Amino acid sequence: MNKDYYVVIMAGGVGTRFWPMSTVACPKQFIDVMGTGMTMIQQTYARFRDFCPPENIFVVTGRAYRDLVLKQLPMMRPDRVLCEPHRKNTAPCIAYANYKIGSLNPEATIVVAPADHVVLKEDVFNEAIHTAAEAASRNDCLITLGITPSSPNTGYGYIQFDTESMRGYDKIKKVKLFTEKPELEMAKTFVESGEFLWNAGLFIWSLKSSMKAFKEHLPEVDELFASGLGKYDTPEEAGYIEKIYLVCKSISIDYGVMEKARNVYVLECDFGWSDVGTWDSLYELRPKDKERNAVEGRNVLLYDTKGCIVNVPKDKLVVLQGLEDYIVVENNDRLLVCRRSEEQMLRQIVGDIASEKGEKFI
Amino acid sequence: MNKDYYVVIMAGGVGTRFWPMSTVACPKQFIDVMGTGMTMIQQTYARFRDFCPPENIFVVTGRAYRDLVLKQLPMMRPDRVLCEPHRKNTAPCIAYANYKIGSLNPEATIVVAPADHVVLKEDVFNEAIHTAAEAASRNDCLITLGITPSSPNTGYGYIQFDTESMRGYDKIKKVKLFTEKPELEMAKTFVESGEFLWNAGLFIWSLKSSMKAFKEHLPEVDELFASGLGKYDTPEEAGYIEKIYLVCKSISIDYGVMEKARNVYVLECDFGWSDVGTWDSLYELRPKDKERNAVEGRNVLLYDTKGCIVNVPKDKLVVLQGLEDYIVVENNDRLLVCRRSEEQMLRQIVGDIASEKGEKFI
Repeated sequence: MNKDYYVVIMAGGVGTRFWPMSTVACPKQFIDVMGTGMTMIQQTYARFRDFCPPENIFVVTGRAYRDLVLKQLPMMRPDRVLCEPHRKNTAPCIAYANYKIGSLNPEATIVVAPADHVVLKEDVFNEAIHTAAEAASRNDCLITLGITPSSPNTGYGYIQFDTESMRGYDKIKKVKLFTEKPELEMAKTFVESGEFLWNAGLFIWSLKSSMKAFKEHLPEVDELFASGLGKYDTPEEAGYIEKIYLVCKSISIDYGVMEKARNVYVLECDFGWSDVGTWDSLYELRPKDKERNAVEGRNVLLYDTKGCIVNVPKDKLVVLQGLEDYIVVENNDRLLVCRRSEEQMLRQIVGDIASEKGEKFI
Repeated sequence: MNKDYYVVIMAGGVGTRFWPMSTVACPKQFIDVMGTGMTMIQQTYARFRDFCPPENIFVVTGRAYRDLVLKQLPMMRPDRVLCEPHRKNTAPCIAYANYKIGSLNPEATIVVAPADHVVLKEDVFNEAIHTAAEAASRNDCLITLGITPSSPNTGYGYIQFDTESMRGYDKIKKVKLFTEKPELEMAKTFVESGEFLWNAGLFIWSLKSSMKAFKEHLPEVDELFASGLGKYDTPEEAGYIEKIYLVCKSISIDYGVMEKARNVYVLECDFGWSDVGTWDSLYELRPKDKERNAVEGRNVLLYDTKGCIVNVPKDKLVVLQGLEDYIVVENNDRLLVCRRSEEQMLRQIVGDIASEKGEKFI
């Protein structure tokens, strides 16, 4: 186990796309979305257990979720949970973690991973992470993992890779282009070309390369964090972070750094990845019965019901008759029945609930 | 207020046609089905408040529901709640009440009423009851209330009346025929003829006429209860009832007495009556929004949802999208979503639940 290896788990999401299964009080990363008995952040943490010493794993989250993180990951040192006072997207989150880790070990090589993604093939994932970490520790580069696309999914960003490889690492290719979520026709062209991979939001780099990239491409963010040198890992840290987050810009690492840097590489992987960003993607991942129903709940009786995703408390008795292709979710005294084809309405629905019933209901 | 007037409220049903709104532990008569703030038995009791002295109102129910009756009708004398040890349909229930009342007042005139029917026009109802009770107290007759049919409903039995009236009571007609629930074509013929009324299961008779009719048409039932003379309204009553209910036949008052007796009369009424025997009948009675949704619950948000009947706890947040003509009911941690057109499946569903999950779930 390499003592210079570090992991930063980004767990700041408050997404309500899975409302009412996920709520503002308990977002997706803190939920057992897959019905495996572990929440997504627990699964993410477990995935890195053998990668680095436990004290090298950091979680960055909103202050409101600190207790939830420590409850779900009781083995974590409390000072390894970094709390953001405001949500500023991924770049400030990563800058914060960089400066924190920099105060501990300037030779660090860091894996940055979202807390709420699914990895079905853990061994393939581990191999990729180790390969990327080794390459990142030896080269001044920013490595991202690119997933072999299994469909022209329009919910993901795509990465176009070059023929040029990193020296000594044939499978790690130079990145030609990052793209936003494409239209379906464009996505089809991407997939057919064989040159595009899904952007999984997983980054591997040495602390030095990451810091250098921030200084070059996001100096206004870097300077805020740099002015706090000497305060990280001291009692002054929280107060300082509070102050700079107020003024720090909100920007993603992709837009702020990755799309601008020229030393960006991608390692193509195929480890059964999904960001589980929609009910449809969850439906695809879940085991289904012969009527194509994906049911989570022990006391669910279905009659003439097909293609539904059902997520209800284990002990709740639920009878569904005559439903086809619906989402049926009950959690915390909130019930949703919605056509699967209309799941994009959830954003409006959750907004309506917040304004009509109050934010405590979302 | 006539001290010889008595009321027998039949509250023995365990029907689960409204599952999970009604359950075996709390059947329909003990539920606020109409969303008025009163349960059906409370409404039924209230309807007779001015008809007779309170101690003259009896409730006959299953032993398991005794406490529920006294909880919902705390003004009742406990000895006015007659408990049947077994369910034997309406004839034994009425025979029991007859003998009980006979031990108190042989001059009684009795109204027998189901606990779980709806009456929208209370004043019309009261007038009909008074007319019928007066006629019954003066004549040896069995009077039933017949409802002017507003549609060819196939869920009700029908009563055909004769042109002949009771002497002194023009509106009380001789009954020609009782019929079971008809097929639709037959029901249409009934309604068009103008000679048929809905059988509301409401009976008015003097104790003497009722006892006489039992002796003549159901002697085997009458003899069981007659052998207990002297025990009614004494500490021996419960034990005796326990014993005879074991052997007493199960038979309805319609089949056992009304269809056979020749002194049966009907008073045509139109007081907004419904037995609320199906979700559809409840849907018809309920106020509806402009999308034809009948919603009971304070926090229900509907999107692209039409023709649904929704019954959920007041504080439950429920979001429905894309449902048309469904029943959505939540109660006591049981949820049902079912097409309104398939409500007859509920019998099978409840049976499945009982056998697969256990009777405590129904």
